[in-house]
Amino acid sequence: MAARLKSQEEYATLIDKYDTFLFDCDGVLWNGDAVVDGVIDVLRMLREKNKSVIFVTNNASKSRVDYKGKFDKMGVQATEEEIFGSAYASAVYISTVLRLPPTSKVYVIGMPGLEHELDTEGIAHIGGSDPADNTLEPFKLSTFVKDEKVSVVLCGLDLHINYTKYCKAFQYLRAGATFLATNVDSTYPVDGGLLPGSGALTYVLAKAMGVEPLSIGKPGKTMMDCIKAKHSFDPARTLMVGDRLDTDILFGKNGGVSTLLVMTGVTTEAVLESTTIVPDYVIDSLGDLRVLI
Amino acid sequence: MAARLKSQEEYATLIDKYDTFLFDCDGVLWNGDAVVDGVIDVLRMLREKNKSVIFVTNNASKSRVDYKGKFDKMGVQATEEEIFGSAYASAVYISTVLRLPPTSKVYVIGMPGLEHELDTEGIAHIGGSDPADNTLEPFKLSTFVKDEKVSVVLCGLDLHINYTKYCKAFQYLRAGATFLATNVDSTYPVDGGLLPGSGALTYVLAKAMGVEPLSIGKPGKTMMDCIKAKHSFDPARTLMVGDRLDTDILFGKNGGVSTLLVMTGVTTEAVLESTTIVPDYVIDSLGDLRVLI
Repeated sequence: MAARLKSQEEYATLIDKYDTFLFDCDGVLWNGDAVVDGVIDVLRMLREKNKSVIFVTNNASKSRVDYKGKFDKMGVQATEEEIFGSAYASAVYISTVLRLPPTSKVYVIGMPGLEHELDTEGIAHIGGSDPADNTLEPFKLSTFVKDEKVSVVLCGLDLHINYTKYCKAFQYLRAGATFLATNVDSTYPVDGGLLPGSGALTYVLAKAMGVEPLSIGKPGKTMMDCIKAKHSFDPARTLMVGDRLDTDILFGKNGGVSTLLVMTGVTTEAVLESTTIVPDYVIDSLGDLRVLI
Repeated sequence: MAARLKSQEEYATLIDKYDTFLFDCDGVLWNGDAVVDGVIDVLRMLREKNKSVIFVTNNASKSRVDYKGKFDKMGVQATEEEIFGSAYASAVYISTVLRLPPTSKVYVIGMPGLEHELDTEGIAHIGGSDPADNTLEPFKLSTFVKDEKVSVVLCGLDLHINYTKYCKAFQYLRAGATFLATNVDSTYPVDGGLLPGSGALTYVLAKAMGVEPLSIGKPGKTMMDCIKAKHSFDPARTLMVGDRLDTDILFGKNGGVSTLLVMTGVTTEAVLESTTIVPDYVIDSLGDLRVLI
């Protein structure tokens, strides 16, 4: 049973127990373009108390540079080194674990932010934002010429998803390409509600192939490995804060840190009551901690 | 263990045992635009022997009228009454089982053939081929106005699938619309190989919602109900012929008729060896029966 924190005393005890705070962003810091009330003050307070703050997002449509821009726009203080995204983690995985030879290519379903992170790691890629693949014209398999250098298919959130992208990715997977997903979030929060997420879009290929992709983002180990490579922290004094049980909270548990669920995102009270992924703590909103200021 | 038929005697015994032959089309009669060798002769032979032939396709991108056009183009004899498609069966299900009131609407992910079958049954629909929904422009939830009359989301193969369609369908499902799929085929055969099928495309919504759709086409009962409503046949003397175990062969088994798998479509020898859905008979190609002529 998760501890539901409500009082100023409980909040103060929570903050005192931890030195490092890992934050999910969508649904925790903001929803779409609306900052969660009080969050900017709470983050400032944590920094004033010399806490480390790290932002861990499964949003693969943005590079770390793009994400820094989002923080700036929202008025939330962050440095590029504090930001970890599944696009970045995917690029790191391909370059350091798969050790893709320089002649190999990645077929991308995703946005320019994902392509940018691949560029940063020196990984060749096709698909993605290529105008030829951003079309609603019919796909003709009989005239499709595969790029024989493609050895990985990487799927992230792609707001320009279409049948040509699915068909090409499917042909590469059938030819033996490694199947990676930036993350498995089935939905993501925007102003006004939820939209289908990367994990849902990727499922077309999983279903057509009959195999699941390897997922890089939360709750996967690769994301935690990326953070550990850049920041040292004591897991016993680290708290993962998120709005989603099957990514954020599971990520914290898999990584051996404590977990705090906020109710400003996708998790409803009904889901919380029946979940088998139980966070250590629950608060209504990260912004509620501002009573400590 | 399925009986593998190879000899002229075995083929003759098979034909003698049955009066009614239900045929899947893609992968059995043709692959893409190429008729399977010998099939036209075999179908003519069956008609000359006074066998009933019925064509049962999960292809939901075509109406029965469209499909008749495909038969004509391929040079395969068929009447409109002999053709049953999952688009037609879906429309029949909505009008006769759901009994949708005339004020209600269906949000369609699918092609004009599906819309045409809905029209035939007098069912109001939006989405589908509407130019506003056939776009790669960003979808903005905060300005989206739901049509409150939508009470069903129907998903079929849609070669113009895009994020706007997924987002709109998802909003209607979240508001309580009934979730129907024309069929669950994860792939479909075309010239040169396989492409992701309706069942794979629909999975974006299944994954985002966390619920499976009700599937109308093979192997579902609705398709068999549609055929029985128009043709009388003795199940004991009826043979379902198909290339796919989890749709065609299971459909035959669910309907209490005998089943014949052909190896000209999606099923490989390796899949056949390990399947739990065992057909009564297997032949390499429907065209092989032409040795009987």
